[in-house]
Amino acid sequence: IVSRLPHVGTTIFTVMSKLAQECGAINLSQGFPDFNAEDALFERVAHWMRAGHNQYAPMTGMPALRQAIADKIAALYGTAYDVDAEVTVTAGATQALFTAVTACVRPGDEVIVFEPVYDAYGPAIELAGGTIVPIRLSAPDYRPDWNAMAAAIGPRTRMIMINSPHNPTATVWTAEDMERLAALTRGTGIVVLSDEVYEHIVFDGVAHQSCARHPELAVRSIIVSSFGKTYHVTGWKVGYVVAPRELMAEFRKVHQFNVFSVNTPVQLALADYMADAGRHLALAGFYQEKRDFFRNALAGSRFELLPSAGTYFQLVRYGRISDQGDADFCQWLTREVGVAAIPVSAFFADGRDEGVIRFCFAKNEATLTAACERLCKV
Amino acid sequence: IVSRLPHVGTTIFTVMSKLAQECGAINLSQGFPDFNAEDALFERVAHWMRAGHNQYAPMTGMPALRQAIADKIAALYGTAYDVDAEVTVTAGATQALFTAVTACVRPGDEVIVFEPVYDAYGPAIELAGGTIVPIRLSAPDYRPDWNAMAAAIGPRTRMIMINSPHNPTATVWTAEDMERLAALTRGTGIVVLSDEVYEHIVFDGVAHQSCARHPELAVRSIIVSSFGKTYHVTGWKVGYVVAPRELMAEFRKVHQFNVFSVNTPVQLALADYMADAGRHLALAGFYQEKRDFFRNALAGSRFELLPSAGTYFQLVRYGRISDQGDADFCQWLTREVGVAAIPVSAFFADGRDEGVIRFCFAKNEATLTAACERLCKV
Ligand SMILES: CSCCC(=O)C(=O)O
Ligand SMILES: CSCCC(=O)C(=O)O
Repeated sequence: IVSRLPHVGTTIFTVMSKLAQECGAINLSQGFPDFNAEDALFERVAHWMRAGHNQYAPMTGMPALRQAIADKIAALYGTAYDVDAEVTVTAGATQALFTAVTACVRPGDEVIVFEPVYDAYGPAIELAGGTIVPIRLSAPDYRPDWNAMAAAIGPRTRMIMINSPHNPTATVWTAEDMERLAALTRGTGIVVLSDEVYEHIVFDGVAHQSCARHPELAVRSIIVSSFGKTYHVTGWKVGYVVAPRELMAEFRKVHQFNVFSVNTPVQLALADYMADAGRHLALAGFYQEKRDFFRNALAGSRFELLPSAGTYFQLVRYGRISDQGDADFCQWLTREVGVAAIPVSAFFADGRDEGVIRFCFAKNEATLTAACERLCKV
Repeated sequence: IVSRLPHVGTTIFTVMSKLAQECGAINLSQGFPDFNAEDALFERVAHWMRAGHNQYAPMTGMPALRQAIADKIAALYGTAYDVDAEVTVTAGATQALFTAVTACVRPGDEVIVFEPVYDAYGPAIELAGGTIVPIRLSAPDYRPDWNAMAAAIGPRTRMIMINSPHNPTATVWTAEDMERLAALTRGTGIVVLSDEVYEHIVFDGVAHQSCARHPELAVRSIIVSSFGKTYHVTGWKVGYVVAPRELMAEFRKVHQFNVFSVNTPVQLALADYMADAGRHLALAGFYQEKRDFFRNALAGSRFELLPSAGTYFQLVRYGRISDQGDADFCQWLTREVGVAAIPVSAFFADGRDEGVIRFCFAKNEATLTAACERLCKV
């Protein structure tokens, strides 16, 4: 059999989490909390299972959950999505992104992405027969380069994939960024695929710039988000997509033959849980405390902290410690120091080393304290 | 946006279940039980959630569940799959099939399928750029035509998709069928994608002919199964794939960027539950009783019962009642008689009518009794 993805190995998150486990290292690599969600959420899942809601959900998602999603978006960002035609529940954000690319991109189409780029984007584009057009973001501030974007857009541009708050750089787009994007795509048929899984983790009182907040962008955007990041259940694999009905119709054609539907009692439990908006509204403050704690604890180290404006990630430069490549340095850090991190080189198609690695601070204070003690000794 | 699936509408299962609900009809269309699974299973999910197992599972699946799957296959079919390299947990069987096709089929490849064919196969092949080569099965016995198969195989044949027990025809392949398939694919690079989601629902004491029972086929087969059908939880959307390591390596390259991983506490609960093999071994007897009950209750009707050797489906001819097309007849039956069924024409690419519809008998006796009372009046 000839590989359809000859250049692809095992995703870096699997590699580093496995290495961390083998070495007994503190795992600040793959992005997930080491604390549990609330019993109240589990109780709702148990309730709906016992009540007999264990058969196929509608392909589009449980109505109660779609309603809760539409209500949240209307309340926070002002766009009213039609609950039946414009909201779909997915088996996580990754499946949503993969399905959206498969539904929109045809052989020969170009898709613009920002590098460093989340590692699932490229293979989805490749499998659809599309061409990846990367726009490089540079440390330390990783701001989008609008001149490069203007130059990259052409007649074959089918889609632009954006991601704010951005993994791995922890940068956050401004309202002006959104206006630049709107202006550059005005009058084109370009679809904006907006990965907003960290929408509720924006720090320092700044407002998340969802595409749903910008009416001109919203009409040509497929917006993806995730419950895993918001409710501390990354392993439940439930996310959602909102899009105008014409785009959603194409999304659903693929979705129904990819996963068909998503765990029914879990959807019902999430719908119940979303009724308390306080939960997602408290998330930014919750993680801002962790960010500040982690940055303070690393302040005395030889790592150079880059800004973290959102997400639960912190980039650091390690040039004062080593001149190894990012991947080698992460291997060394895991094995010898006992703290696992993600090499940012893994987010570049050419694997370029810029001397930057990523830590995840979605951890208990005790975990962060223990990790920082080790990191400060380096 | 130009559709990637221009011919595709909403799947027939969604259409008929929605219509059944709107009309207050008894829903014997989409395949799912109307009774609940055991509290013991729910209790395990609740246990693992409360115990804090809510973050990403490994991309390949939880080790305990992969082990339980490999153990079951070794016990029933005699093939020893490597737990680490040859077993992967998926977000249902549909995602497994979609991912396997995406991983193996390249533009220009041909994929042989048996018609009537489950409606998810074709779009997956189309999206991968493959060409569907259908082999038609004919009522009343729907036996595979090995001469047609020999003629269909050519240098561009990349894959053959098989499905026994077969949805919608309820036929079951024999050991001789498997030998014919092995002989026809001997020495070729053809991949057999074997949809075995009804593996535990084979009636009348007959043994399920898994590809894993036929060593010559097993080395070139990707086998897909599902927990939803086996444990009465179709809405949980957990399935699995087993395949030799080279094929599995390609499967996982796509899987990791499609869904990445599957609900963690549900996987752990299923692993616990599988420890009692009595559960899946009892399933055939359980559904055989329902089949017999349903067939007896319909014996006095004007519907002509075709054989049902496996699955939880029963085909009937309605030619003595109406000369409408299958889809129109199902609409009429739902609206006027109050019983929803699936038109078998939906399983043919050309939508041909053969005067056959499908009932699902995975229902309580009370439901089956009420449905048959209505159907006997027609
Ligand atoms: C799907 S595993 C990776 C989790 C994640 O989003 C990350 O660590 O960046
Ligand atoms: C994925 S919904 C359809 C369920 C099913 O397999 C069937 O009814 O044939």
